[in-house]
Amino acid sequence: MKHSFQALSPARFLSRAAAVYGDRVAVVDGRDRFTYADLYRRARQLAGALIGLDLRPGDRVAVLSANRHEVLEAHYGVPFADGVLVTVNSRLGAAEIAHILRHSGAGILICSPSLGQLAEKAAAESRRDITVVHIGDEYERLLEQATLYEAVVSDELAAVAVNYTSGTTGAPKGVIYSHRGAYLQALAMAFHAGLTADSTYLWTLPMFHCNGWCFTWAVTAAAGTHVCLETVGKDAVWSEIEAHDVTHLCAAPTVLSMIAPGDEDPDHGHGRSIWVGVGGAPPAPAVLARARARGLRVTHLYGMTETYGPVVINEWQSRWDELPEEQRDRLAARQGVGNIVSEPVRVVNEAGIDIPADAVTLGEIALRGNNITPGYLNDSAATESAVPDGWLRTGDLAVRHPDGYIEIRDRAKDVIISGGENLTSVEIEQALLAHPAVAEAAVVARPDEQWGERPVAFIEPVGQTPVTADELRTHLLERIARFKVPDAFEFGRLPRTATGKVQKFALKQRLHAPHGGRPA
Amino acid sequence: MKHSFQALSPARFLSRAAAVYGDRVAVVDGRDRFTYADLYRRARQLAGALIGLDLRPGDRVAVLSANRHEVLEAHYGVPFADGVLVTVNSRLGAAEIAHILRHSGAGILICSPSLGQLAEKAAAESRRDITVVHIGDEYERLLEQATLYEAVVSDELAAVAVNYTSGTTGAPKGVIYSHRGAYLQALAMAFHAGLTADSTYLWTLPMFHCNGWCFTWAVTAAAGTHVCLETVGKDAVWSEIEAHDVTHLCAAPTVLSMIAPGDEDPDHGHGRSIWVGVGGAPPAPAVLARARARGLRVTHLYGMTETYGPVVINEWQSRWDELPEEQRDRLAARQGVGNIVSEPVRVVNEAGIDIPADAVTLGEIALRGNNITPGYLNDSAATESAVPDGWLRTGDLAVRHPDGYIEIRDRAKDVIISGGENLTSVEIEQALLAHPAVAEAAVVARPDEQWGERPVAFIEPVGQTPVTADELRTHLLERIARFKVPDAFEFGRLPRTATGKVQKFALKQRLHAPHGGRPA
Repeated sequence: MKHSFQALSPARFLSRAAAVYGDRVAVVDGRDRFTYADLYRRARQLAGALIGLDLRPGDRVAVLSANRHEVLEAHYGVPFADGVLVTVNSRLGAAEIAHILRHSGAGILICSPSLGQLAEKAAAESRRDITVVHIGDEYERLLEQATLYEAVVSDELAAVAVNYTSGTTGAPKGVIYSHRGAYLQALAMAFHAGLTADSTYLWTLPMFHCNGWCFTWAVTAAAGTHVCLETVGKDAVWSEIEAHDVTHLCAAPTVLSMIAPGDEDPDHGHGRSIWVGVGGAPPAPAVLARARARGLRVTHLYGMTETYGPVVINEWQSRWDELPEEQRDRLAARQGVGNIVSEPVRVVNEAGIDIPADAVTLGEIALRGNNITPGYLNDSAATESAVPDGWLRTGDLAVRHPDGYIEIRDRAKDVIISGGENLTSVEIEQALLAHPAVAEAAVVARPDEQWGERPVAFIEPVGQTPVTADELRTHLLERIARFKVPDAFEFGRLPRTATGKVQKFALKQRLHAPHGGRPA
Repeated sequence: MKHSFQALSPARFLSRAAAVYGDRVAVVDGRDRFTYADLYRRARQLAGALIGLDLRPGDRVAVLSANRHEVLEAHYGVPFADGVLVTVNSRLGAAEIAHILRHSGAGILICSPSLGQLAEKAAAESRRDITVVHIGDEYERLLEQATLYEAVVSDELAAVAVNYTSGTTGAPKGVIYSHRGAYLQALAMAFHAGLTADSTYLWTLPMFHCNGWCFTWAVTAAAGTHVCLETVGKDAVWSEIEAHDVTHLCAAPTVLSMIAPGDEDPDHGHGRSIWVGVGGAPPAPAVLARARARGLRVTHLYGMTETYGPVVINEWQSRWDELPEEQRDRLAARQGVGNIVSEPVRVVNEAGIDIPADAVTLGEIALRGNNITPGYLNDSAATESAVPDGWLRTGDLAVRHPDGYIEIRDRAKDVIISGGENLTSVEIEQALLAHPAVAEAAVVARPDEQWGERPVAFIEPVGQTPVTADELRTHLLERIARFKVPDAFEFGRLPRTATGKVQKFALKQRLHAPHGGRPA
């Protein structure tokens, strides 16, 4: 029966793309262009080079780089060498990277020129014997001298990658991705984004973030063109979009907000139609309106490192197009339903029982299926704790709407309990984001003698737009219950993790600090 | 690790479609409409009913019906009952159906009203204890009385369906489809056809033909709408297309030719854009031009019962759009490359070695991978003979073009050996089809004392268009070598199998019959 079984592996998409679309542009990186034949050859050269560096089956290879063509090469070359890819967040410090190198046991670290010093420092701090390969002449020489190699995966349940969590709570954990899971998730992304061989995908999302939500493989599956982008900025994004006729990109809401700013800018985007997958947080109504005006068709996605990226998708029902804009934006803010290869999404109470689909009852999102990590590397205790009963607990609290779509109300740890009521910070934040002067909002709990906890809001305004606490209070009172309106408002830049997530724990610490926490 | 593994099964696409698009129309069948919630409920009722009829896991359930909603229900209800679906070609005779019932061991036969008598006759002839379930009141009563049931598949390599070959050579063989293979092939079809929840698929292709090339599952995966069609005719097809805004359909070239006829017919199709998957034989240039004029965007597909339908696809390279029409049509006639889930397609010589990609050397197409049948039911000898070395031999002779695309020249058994030269009947047929008066052409070998064999052409003209042997000879001499021009031409209807394939063996027999075979 062997002739009818082939282990699923996302790396094989490149073999097919090279065979069918060998002369098409696979990667645009600055002035460099690589066809699919080039990318396939370089990936096999990289595989040969890694084996030349004594890589054994299952060994980890770490990559520390911004979005460059070499990172895409590693997404194929490492599995072609039967290795396991560990893309490291380039915004981490040497100590954190050293921890990841130690924990993953990577023996090889590939790094980009601007991160070369950091890589060397981290390798030294890891106190392990690590071969640092510098992208540039050294990397090119390794490739040139290598023989082509392409391992055929025999066990589709084996690891293809390990992705470290951002570690907002405790030390980063290594999330294992299997070949099978990554293959299916990549197919799902290609399907939902409508990728084809004529698509051009702009890398605004870091490739080190859940392997770019598996678009590193999905774009290749469709034989579209990858356009690399090292640094995300409004002008850089739009100049790439215009230079390469970009059709698709993924972004956090912050990035979406940046590329679709509030000020009038008639030069950018009008008349285009670009599919934008947005994840990490729900897109705010004001941002959605600005995105629409620029031809950005936003699809809200939800997932986490443990789910190969977007395991849940806000499947847009075409009849919603008829609704008033405000209603549409509210629908777009819901996380949605499982994607085409996902298992049904559950929302459960503490006993693991499904909560009713009444749009009110809060429960925790629980997941299982082929696009859920098999577990954490070398940490079976953490795996058991995350998957207590065969269902991965996400730590995200959500309601289920009567139509089955789920909507996150909060991170479990961010709920504010005030006078015995559960206030969800997300609801208050969404209401704040509906104000045109609010770019970002984070609401956290401040201890309160009378109520137990009370909400406090931290506001990042749009540009220099002036806005006062009183204005926001009035705005909120029209939208949410009085007892949910924060007691205080603070204005300024919000602290963020290396992946761009707002660090609520830092905000909470600020509230407790002796000289901080005196919001208006 | 169980939380991260779910057996792949195409039936699960219905569970998702019902959860996400429950109120959307899943099936249009005459005046009947079924939402995805309806289809899901009815499929689970059917599963419950089958178990009520003592169906055990792995038992076969046969279905004898034209394209109706009940056949779609069986594509989900049978696997939901852990059964194996055997859709039977409705054009077969009672004896052939009896053979299939016996061979598959089906204990239940579901039949449509117009085929009820045939079903009863076949069941009786099978001399087995078969429960015949008549679609209509009986079927509806069974469903009403059943409890909902939905088995979750645990072994994705188990059979979901058995499809019988048309038996152009010898007795029909039962081709096993696994859950995994059907799931992946359905995803591939959804991807390549660009199916979405807004797609409407017209069932011009029989659902009993390789489970409708797995579109029975692919359309549901995308949550598009199935439009059933019991009898294919030009007017019926166009009236369904117009009534339901059809976006997709699949067809044999004969059907494509029928719905895009040569005569001017300004009422049909102009201004539309419909994706048409064409398989079974290469679409002729004249038909392609007529299809284009009616907004039918043809994608040429290749496969066979053993490959879950289209395992190979003529991936259209957008740069070909610039080429002159004649060149484009020649490119469209090539079978192409493996689809997105297929393994690379090989073309091998008799020793199993790949032939060069020189567009000239002939070899046999050889396949393996997840969308290749694990084998023939209860016929390991046939499986071994079809898969001598881990690669399924298709019996189709092809060349490989320098760009990797394959093009079939002939069925292995249809090659004509004349004066030591191999003449491929397909090449001569394609040249004949380029003549505007030729609707169909079949070229077969006639024994010849001097040359061993010589080609003879059988021609089905377009409508009543008069054409002579001399005209065709002149036409061919401009296109192919003199020694390839048939010695004789015969005009009239061509004999066909139940699946619409031209019966070349019948034509050969006619050449040997005492009172036949006197072509011009």
